[in-house]
Amino acid sequence: MRGKVAVVGAGLVKFGELFDKSFFDLIVEATNHCVENVDKGIDLEKEIEAAWLGTCDGAASCQRDVPSGAALISALPQLKDIPVSRNENACATGSDAFRNAAMSIAAGVYETVMVVGAEKMREKHPEGFLRFVAAREQVYNRGLIAASYFAMYANAHMHKYARNEEERRSQLSKIAVKNHHNGTFCPFSHFSFEITEEQASTAPMVSYPFRLFDCCPQTDGAAVVILTRAENALKYTDAPLYLLGTALSTDTYWLPNRRSLTSAHATVNAARAAYKMARIEAKDIDFAEVHDCFTFTELLDYEDLGFCNPGDGGKLIDEGEVELGGRIPVNTSGGLKAKGHPIGATGIGQICENWFQLRNEAGKRQVDGAEIGLQHNLGGPLAVACVNILTNKKP
Amino acid sequence: MRGKVAVVGAGLVKFGELFDKSFFDLIVEATNHCVENVDKGIDLEKEIEAAWLGTCDGAASCQRDVPSGAALISALPQLKDIPVSRNENACATGSDAFRNAAMSIAAGVYETVMVVGAEKMREKHPEGFLRFVAAREQVYNRGLIAASYFAMYANAHMHKYARNEEERRSQLSKIAVKNHHNGTFCPFSHFSFEITEEQASTAPMVSYPFRLFDCCPQTDGAAVVILTRAENALKYTDAPLYLLGTALSTDTYWLPNRRSLTSAHATVNAARAAYKMARIEAKDIDFAEVHDCFTFTELLDYEDLGFCNPGDGGKLIDEGEVELGGRIPVNTSGGLKAKGHPIGATGIGQICENWFQLRNEAGKRQVDGAEIGLQHNLGGPLAVACVNILTNKKP
Repeated sequence: MRGKVAVVGAGLVKFGELFDKSFFDLIVEATNHCVENVDKGIDLEKEIEAAWLGTCDGAASCQRDVPSGAALISALPQLKDIPVSRNENACATGSDAFRNAAMSIAAGVYETVMVVGAEKMREKHPEGFLRFVAAREQVYNRGLIAASYFAMYANAHMHKYARNEEERRSQLSKIAVKNHHNGTFCPFSHFSFEITEEQASTAPMVSYPFRLFDCCPQTDGAAVVILTRAENALKYTDAPLYLLGTALSTDTYWLPNRRSLTSAHATVNAARAAYKMARIEAKDIDFAEVHDCFTFTELLDYEDLGFCNPGDGGKLIDEGEVELGGRIPVNTSGGLKAKGHPIGATGIGQICENWFQLRNEAGKRQVDGAEIGLQHNLGGPLAVACVNILTNKKP
Repeated sequence: MRGKVAVVGAGLVKFGELFDKSFFDLIVEATNHCVENVDKGIDLEKEIEAAWLGTCDGAASCQRDVPSGAALISALPQLKDIPVSRNENACATGSDAFRNAAMSIAAGVYETVMVVGAEKMREKHPEGFLRFVAAREQVYNRGLIAASYFAMYANAHMHKYARNEEERRSQLSKIAVKNHHNGTFCPFSHFSFEITEEQASTAPMVSYPFRLFDCCPQTDGAAVVILTRAENALKYTDAPLYLLGTALSTDTYWLPNRRSLTSAHATVNAARAAYKMARIEAKDIDFAEVHDCFTFTELLDYEDLGFCNPGDGGKLIDEGEVELGGRIPVNTSGGLKAKGHPIGATGIGQICENWFQLRNEAGKRQVDGAEIGLQHNLGGPLAVACVNILTNKKP
């Protein structure tokens, strides 16, 4: 990228089943939290020149409101008249909105912009919210929902790499236990209770091999970050984050055309492009917030993001390397599994976790000495992935 | 913008009621037309590094498919693995996708990208397609549909500026006659028949003062453009277009908070920003493709885009200045009124008309010696506007 981009503010609401808060309420609350977190203050009305709204669910699907970018202006009258683009990219919606916003600064078009991710998942939808984030003709109409789609990958991967079903069951349960544990330390997490490996391994079956605690919940939430030119960053804070790499990749929806059922090509390609832009390798990442819509997805991410070799994802959790205190802690916030997955807000929420970690503000879940963090979403299912890499060292 | 951006290919389908073509069919056909129009050829698989899909209607609303950017990959397997963002911004969807794509090149992230706008409007929707592009809570649930919303503006403007209802009726009809006339010269136009002022002035009432021929049709369509770094442009064609200015602006959805009912603030602000970036004034524009969802919208655009003073829009059509051969021909393609308004495709289709005009390929509707063209969308209703300015002279 031509221009360098910094993150100078980040904030979010406590994710959860927020029936008492509207889409607009969530945006206002997350924005207020973000503004509070801009150390030296910011005047939204004077300083925000453009915004991106990441939200997956348009007006079409329910009794809600407002498909387009101008929604934000109605929620936040301080942003009067500024350009607002709406981005939707399945489960990568928030992280792709961030990517588009970052490019606008690198292009020299704007100095300071805001990215808002927000989603209300727990309202009434005639056929359930998650239908909307899967291609209808190619996926949903063929009986595939998110759980069954990822379950196919989980089974193919288990068949190819796991010693036996018991070993894999235990690995998936350990990921659930880890993320629930991390979630108890995160004040923004939907779930804040511990679970045991026994509970995870015997919970009701959803879609083999996924049991209840292998699946992330449906969650409402919003998250906001403020970006500026790197040259401006110290005006807002002495501890900004800098964007090292940002990349998106896609894969076909058509299952028969997929090249592998044991790797998400979109993640592999997005990670490769992001590492290249950042001029780093996977081993340089100190911690990561990755897409764990299912426990297996996180295991697959370890491999696809290059944290280990293909097939070795199970070992990473077995050996504790991805736990707090491990070699590369993953989903310190609790991940989608415990923190929740309000689609448009998920990616921005992961960037907020990077904000807390890279500023040494993550309390009991702090990764000591963290300098480079990664954020990853995978959606579609497995048809789109976005990776953003952030650091607290001036590049 | 840091980097300069060129348009090196543009193509579209003949807009219309295309029940026999799928969303994917439309994208493939428009892409093929675009590739044919790249004078020196392009290999999509090797040369397109990223894409933006502008489509207003996600998977949510009907029996269709695919909300996210990865849709494009399913339609066009040549684009294997590349990043695809989906943009939605009400009636400015296509033009905002173009703006985001242009910024990615200016940022130095990509060399060559594609922008696809596509919409199927004529499928079954339980409550009609156009509900989805208006905010539900603030607009639709209050009895406002697009026609009644714009009609309020039309009436306020008539009350303030027109000598009497007959004068304004005649002006609106002249705009409809002009655009239908232009549409007969455009091979991509939904309607290709002339109408008379008498027909327009006596057609069935829709929402006062709008009669049938004051309203654009609901149309299916797709349009595609290819952008590259200006430094690369001659590799693809000896007659590229260069992007001089691009801007988006928003306004509140809440009617009581609108500052005027006789001007669209979003258009005024977007035009001001685009002219500033382009370092030109409104008088430098040789022709314009503007948002005429209703005849009155075009009249308002004349004023808001600065082609005349506030209140003088009626004079511009009365004096023939916006006709072919006039001072500033408007909607030479037939406009939304005759060419049609397939929402995601509309803005990209207007950029295609700039392509034909600025390359002297517009046949009977050619604007002689055109050097600078403008493209404008207004959506929301009146809550978002996008303006792009293009030229055939190397800046």
